[in-house]
Amino acid sequence: MALGIFDSGVGGLTVYKELSSAFPHTNMFYLGDTARVPYGNKSPETIIRYSMECACLLTDKYHVNALVVACNTISSYAVDKLKSVFGLPVLEVIQAGAEKALQVTCNGAIGVIGTIATIRSNSYVNMLKELSGDTVRIWQKACPLFVPLVEEGLITGDIPRLTIKFYLDELMKRPIDTLILACTHYPILAPLISELYPQIRIVDSATVMVEKIKQMGILVSESGRREILVTDASPAFESLKTMLVGNIRMKVIELRETGIA
Amino acid sequence: MALGIFDSGVGGLTVYKELSSAFPHTNMFYLGDTARVPYGNKSPETIIRYSMECACLLTDKYHVNALVVACNTISSYAVDKLKSVFGLPVLEVIQAGAEKALQVTCNGAIGVIGTIATIRSNSYVNMLKELSGDTVRIWQKACPLFVPLVEEGLITGDIPRLTIKFYLDELMKRPIDTLILACTHYPILAPLISELYPQIRIVDSATVMVEKIKQMGILVSESGRREILVTDASPAFESLKTMLVGNIRMKVIELRETGIA
Repeated sequence: MALGIFDSGVGGLTVYKELSSAFPHTNMFYLGDTARVPYGNKSPETIIRYSMECACLLTDKYHVNALVVACNTISSYAVDKLKSVFGLPVLEVIQAGAEKALQVTCNGAIGVIGTIATIRSNSYVNMLKELSGDTVRIWQKACPLFVPLVEEGLITGDIPRLTIKFYLDELMKRPIDTLILACTHYPILAPLISELYPQIRIVDSATVMVEKIKQMGILVSESGRREILVTDASPAFESLKTMLVGNIRMKVIELRETGIA
Repeated sequence: MALGIFDSGVGGLTVYKELSSAFPHTNMFYLGDTARVPYGNKSPETIIRYSMECACLLTDKYHVNALVVACNTISSYAVDKLKSVFGLPVLEVIQAGAEKALQVTCNGAIGVIGTIATIRSNSYVNMLKELSGDTVRIWQKACPLFVPLVEEGLITGDIPRLTIKFYLDELMKRPIDTLILACTHYPILAPLISELYPQIRIVDSATVMVEKIKQMGILVSESGRREILVTDASPAFESLKTMLVGNIRMKVIELRETGIA
């Protein structure tokens, strides 16, 4: 049993990090398509094609038996296709995040923040409505500057503070008591968001993903092999990776266009 | 005679815009590799490979007779390769910007701002030293948040103001009298930079590129055909394109991996 975790970049390492510490004996391979990141501003067709290429590599070369989509953009657009093509368990952050939000909200009013593509897809809105039987109220907001802020390491001080207020002040005037961080980079800004809006319950799908995999009972103990693969190495990703998971080496691999999608 | 202008994204439209109005009767094709933007955080090998694929499309399918590299990242890494492979005039923004800076500086102290990759390449430093016989002093600063700010339309107010100050306050303590905007997105922030640092002479390579092409005398009058090609259409690029050049339609094309590089 090996777990393949993938993302358009290295933000999904927030999910890898939780899974890695929760399941120390499971073989785990992380793939970040850093050569083509970000997916968030690309068309659905392109997102699906790139996602299939990532999954192909993990199944063909690394023989993973389950896929974790640690990227909200891919989860929004490509999960149905991945499930139908690969015939493996495909876990994704949207259902995990939505389930958790429904557990913690007291008033059934939920906020969702993410990239433009994730928000436009309405995936969280649809999932929350489906899971709740359409009993919740939802407000969404795209925050495209949050990812570059995190990647620049600007996670404290006036610039992130003003940028968070720029995006969230209006949202916080709504009656929401729960906020889903629908982007794997955003947990890094969570302390500042909590400081600015202390009344809000923040839902981070990485921790929920751990619960979900435990429930499924799909993991067995192996050697606990770990590998972090990227399609392109750059110092910017190296520093973000170091901030998230320390000095594990990133291996650069080439991702062939498969034309499968 | 047709001119092929290309960039990793749509920032190069600042160059297209100047060329288009200066040479209304020249056939002009713009290609933005929006499916794979940004190049700025990718490795030199990847930047070269992608650039070759862009140039291939413009020469093979659009039969351009001269290439304008409207992207500082590509100019930094791929121009030698492009020149040697295609045997066409290849004009690029680095030499144009450096020549202009040397003309306008009074004290020979020049600042250069751009993406991480452009600054790390030292291309402007090397070009300025070469053209001046090593008689100028140069200070550089990478400003990775400027592109996402522009693409988010955040070009006035406290967030861009603080972000500009975050990157440039230290640089402006140097004796520089001239600042090269070594990224095609940055001219859109030029008014705010001028307001914050009114003493500085700003060099924008788009306008200099017009002079350069006039000098070369390589253009002839044709039908003035225009086409804007992108490898992926997204509303974010559509709005930036509209801000820059209005309602010209973008045509989405597929860029095949050539393996040429």
